[in-house]
Amino acid sequence: MTTADLFEQIKAKQSFLCVGLDVDQDRFPVELRDKPDNLFNFCQKIIDSTAHYCVAYKPNIAFFEAYGLEGWKSLEKVMQYINRHYPEMFTIADAKRADIGNTSKRYAKAYFEHFDFDSITVSPYMGVDSVEPFLTYEDKYTILLALTSNKGATDFQLASVGNQKLYEEVIKKSLEWQNSKQLMYVVGATKAEALQSIRQLIPEHFLLIPGVGAQGGSLEEVALNGMNNQCGILVNSSRGIIYASSESDYAEKAGSVAREMQQKMRELLIQNQIL
Amino acid sequence: MTTADLFEQIKAKQSFLCVGLDVDQDRFPVELRDKPDNLFNFCQKIIDSTAHYCVAYKPNIAFFEAYGLEGWKSLEKVMQYINRHYPEMFTIADAKRADIGNTSKRYAKAYFEHFDFDSITVSPYMGVDSVEPFLTYEDKYTILLALTSNKGATDFQLASVGNQKLYEEVIKKSLEWQNSKQLMYVVGATKAEALQSIRQLIPEHFLLIPGVGAQGGSLEEVALNGMNNQCGILVNSSRGIIYASSESDYAEKAGSVAREMQQKMRELLIQNQIL
Repeated sequence: MTTADLFEQIKAKQSFLCVGLDVDQDRFPVELRDKPDNLFNFCQKIIDSTAHYCVAYKPNIAFFEAYGLEGWKSLEKVMQYINRHYPEMFTIADAKRADIGNTSKRYAKAYFEHFDFDSITVSPYMGVDSVEPFLTYEDKYTILLALTSNKGATDFQLASVGNQKLYEEVIKKSLEWQNSKQLMYVVGATKAEALQSIRQLIPEHFLLIPGVGAQGGSLEEVALNGMNNQCGILVNSSRGIIYASSESDYAEKAGSVAREMQQKMRELLIQNQIL
Repeated sequence: MTTADLFEQIKAKQSFLCVGLDVDQDRFPVELRDKPDNLFNFCQKIIDSTAHYCVAYKPNIAFFEAYGLEGWKSLEKVMQYINRHYPEMFTIADAKRADIGNTSKRYAKAYFEHFDFDSITVSPYMGVDSVEPFLTYEDKYTILLALTSNKGATDFQLASVGNQKLYEEVIKKSLEWQNSKQLMYVVGATKAEALQSIRQLIPEHFLLIPGVGAQGGSLEEVALNGMNNQCGILVNSSRGIIYASSESDYAEKAGSVAREMQQKMRELLIQNQIL
């Protein structure tokens, strides 16, 4: 999938919503707990009820990994289900991987070939050769951590490197890397004030924006500061949607919350003259 | 396992060798290729032939992950095999994980509970709350990336933050975190000249040192600059040992190379008055 395809989908669905799949059995409705294949069954119902309102799904790999083999089997099934039934969907492996080049190649193989994700989140700390193996895949995207939404983002990402912050240095340097057009960037919604200056550095690239909802970021501010003329942002919500209800109506409620977000997003797309 | 236990093992085996398990079927001897369960069978033979000469095993998670479910099954078997037959061994999940706190908890659960590793490598980019969930496990160690052995290490790790380098800032700040005694640090052997100043910052902590062998680092320099009075270093070799031969004598040759390294390490331990 290309970003042009993604933009077409954004216009068609009037949404730039990404639904994060943070599967946590302890938060499942009682009737699903400890049932065989419940990770997949939960995701399948969430997907069917939200697919009309979102353009991307973001399985959070840690949550699958925590369940061992069962988790990996479920992740395979989830990806097969999305790719078969909703092939237009942009899929993000929220894996935050990266290692020396020789090893990053294996992670790229796992997520781009084995699971057939469209993109993966990657940590920049190890530099160019830890990221480029992901960028060699045509029509696949590498979503580099720039400025994250968590408390610890201030520890190093906001450290001053010369007359700029480390996350700005990360963005600037990454633009020199091979196939840098296939980069996207994670910028937390809780750091909306930084979006304007980030847009000056990377006017064209897509941003993946977590932190709206549970973490406190504002959708309006994010759109105001982050949107470009191809939309250019994907706003993620995980817990706010998939755990909107812990009762048997969880899928229906997830759909309702996703629809509410889609309607707000539609307004913002109209305000920004994208629709 | 505690670092005191690790030090006892180092003295008993007269070695500070860590063997990296980067399983790559393309480099297996012909008779093992495309055979069922060959990832585990390869590792089992390597382990049996090297366990006498090393104190730690470091499965490189990406290499298992690249094989999908088969890879994860093999990793489970490898860890069960090590923990059953060589319970004295210090095990390192070379996973380079980290995410927001809520998600890092899941990675900690996967590696410390599900697989029962003694330690895991973790990336510092997302800061305190991305690392602390790993540090809450008693007698488990979190090996923070400081200065890595790859080319891209110069991109950000060596960036000047005030009057120091980013990797020094990472080390200093991490010492303020909860249970920081359970930290170890990755410092590449290709950066041996930095080891002296790193030792001034963290005289007591163990360092995991990759990059001897295939990547060109020197064992002698690493010992000269990095060792403390509890040894304090684990030197990793992966390809140089496990692919010492691509013929049917691969396990025997791996044992020979590991033994050669152990003998050099014994000399260095004597020179540093640890033996």
